[in-house]
Amino acid sequence: MHVLILGAAGMVGRKLVERLCSDAVIGGREITAMTLFDIVEPQKPVTAWPVSVRAGDIGERSDIDKLLLHKPDVIFHLAALASGGSEEDFDAGYRINLDGTRHLVEAIRAQNYCPRVVYTSSIAVFGAPFPDAIDDVFLSAPLTSYGAQKACSELLLADYSRRGLLDAIAIRLPTVIIRPGRPNRAASGFFSNILREPLIGREAVLPVSRDVCHWMASPRTTAGFLVHAASLDLTRLGDRRALTMPGISVSVGEMIESLKRIAGADRAALIRDEPDETIARIVDGWPRAFKTERALRLGFVADRSMDDIIRIHIEDELGGRLG
Amino acid sequence: MHVLILGAAGMVGRKLVERLCSDAVIGGREITAMTLFDIVEPQKPVTAWPVSVRAGDIGERSDIDKLLLHKPDVIFHLAALASGGSEEDFDAGYRINLDGTRHLVEAIRAQNYCPRVVYTSSIAVFGAPFPDAIDDVFLSAPLTSYGAQKACSELLLADYSRRGLLDAIAIRLPTVIIRPGRPNRAASGFFSNILREPLIGREAVLPVSRDVCHWMASPRTTAGFLVHAASLDLTRLGDRRALTMPGISVSVGEMIESLKRIAGADRAALIRDEPDETIARIVDGWPRAFKTERALRLGFVADRSMDDIIRIHIEDELGGRLG
Repeated sequence: MHVLILGAAGMVGRKLVERLCSDAVIGGREITAMTLFDIVEPQKPVTAWPVSVRAGDIGERSDIDKLLLHKPDVIFHLAALASGGSEEDFDAGYRINLDGTRHLVEAIRAQNYCPRVVYTSSIAVFGAPFPDAIDDVFLSAPLTSYGAQKACSELLLADYSRRGLLDAIAIRLPTVIIRPGRPNRAASGFFSNILREPLIGREAVLPVSRDVCHWMASPRTTAGFLVHAASLDLTRLGDRRALTMPGISVSVGEMIESLKRIAGADRAALIRDEPDETIARIVDGWPRAFKTERALRLGFVADRSMDDIIRIHIEDELGGRLG
Repeated sequence: MHVLILGAAGMVGRKLVERLCSDAVIGGREITAMTLFDIVEPQKPVTAWPVSVRAGDIGERSDIDKLLLHKPDVIFHLAALASGGSEEDFDAGYRINLDGTRHLVEAIRAQNYCPRVVYTSSIAVFGAPFPDAIDDVFLSAPLTSYGAQKACSELLLADYSRRGLLDAIAIRLPTVIIRPGRPNRAASGFFSNILREPLIGREAVLPVSRDVCHWMASPRTTAGFLVHAASLDLTRLGDRRALTMPGISVSVGEMIESLKRIAGADRAALIRDEPDETIARIVDGWPRAFKTERALRLGFVADRSMDDIIRIHIEDELGGRLG
């Protein structure tokens, strides 16, 4: 089985590569080749199978055509310009997040075969006003260009799937925390910062109020969603190929309580409240909680608790102990 | 006020032109110029203001750029390849129904001004399974390429509006009956045929069962939706720029009862049942009834009854009496 990952150098991409290298199979089928693609050349993992790493631009159709020549069996499409970046650079957002998906589906169609496509959509397809918990038939009315581009991509993938031109599933990821490394340009960055930084003894800025609630999943669980989506029998989805992944709905206050329990009050004291109107307004338009019945029925499993999400970070990023 | 109509030669386009020529104003503002555009050159109406008629291809960006040079104040975007045609010719559907909308929004942006855009979307953005009546927060999960292209266009128009690049409203039209003239390529054609043909003494074929229910509006009422949308204060919509228009939910059996009441049983006897599996399957995926609370609150008004829809056809198309 040949696996292609678009956006392999990003945080979720790297977690997925690690997971696939450790599993060596997807749904019982052995991985025999891997192509990793991103705007910068992804790191080459150590594997028992050949890996090709490529730098390119998903906004260029010819770059995508090249990747499809060998007809990969499973394509993970994670390539995106993040929400903050898409809001700042209107043209780049449409080029990468919408035209990119269109290039992919057209490049697949040109090869005339029907691969599994796993697309990372986002809960940014939803926009306020919301019910208390968003169910599986709530409308996509995004309040960012990123969300609009993701929602359009979902529609394209569903239509191409209905036509039998590919076999896609779009999984709407919760906000993935705790992101390792440095902050990216996502407005949601603080959700990770306020845990990651104190865990290594550094200060973090909290730009919103402590009663802000959000829908979250750990990087480990997120990689699990992707792998599960790659081998699921998609006839079970019918023609609705997009679905929201199960997360946990937690307030910033509860996140900080978890941090105290696991790392102590002195670490939690490293969080400095510094309200930012712009971020607060963006976050105000984001969903807080979901009823993800379809995903649960299809075997997707959420993190168990905020404490677990912090422990996963300590295990996977900090070698098992506090920095 | 300069008015541009894309798709002016189509049935709804012609009804809109007639209505505007009779009103001579939109929301109290006088019409001072009109540009009518379609794939074939639209008929030039008799008006007190200058009218330019143009033939062109909405799939060609340069054709749209030319139309925008004079910065029309109100743009009605009705141009589309119908549902049947989009299903048969995959590329043409995406080119006209999705790229066409994108060309329009980008051509507007290039002119750097903020016109009102009234877009005719469709209830084809919805796909089964449905609740008994579809409300204003039900998801768009289309089961045709046409529906997918309309849903993507809605998302683009909402995002460009949110950015202040234009001021759009997407109105999802019910199936418009009774269409005058000859059948087009829409799978919904029979809803008109079974009334229009008997009304002029001709046979008509009914390809589905008589208990099929559907959501309908007359051409006159539909033109009214467009005119109302052109002058409505869209800040009342918030960021959700797409909404379903009020129609009436009527079964084929009830349509035939109406026909009997108005034109007599002998006319209704001209309808021949000739079940067509393909059409029945397509229609089965269509919505039957809606709760259009948003539209009603915003002053959009539905037809009053099936009898009214038939009477409107007799008045507007048959000179007030049965053919």
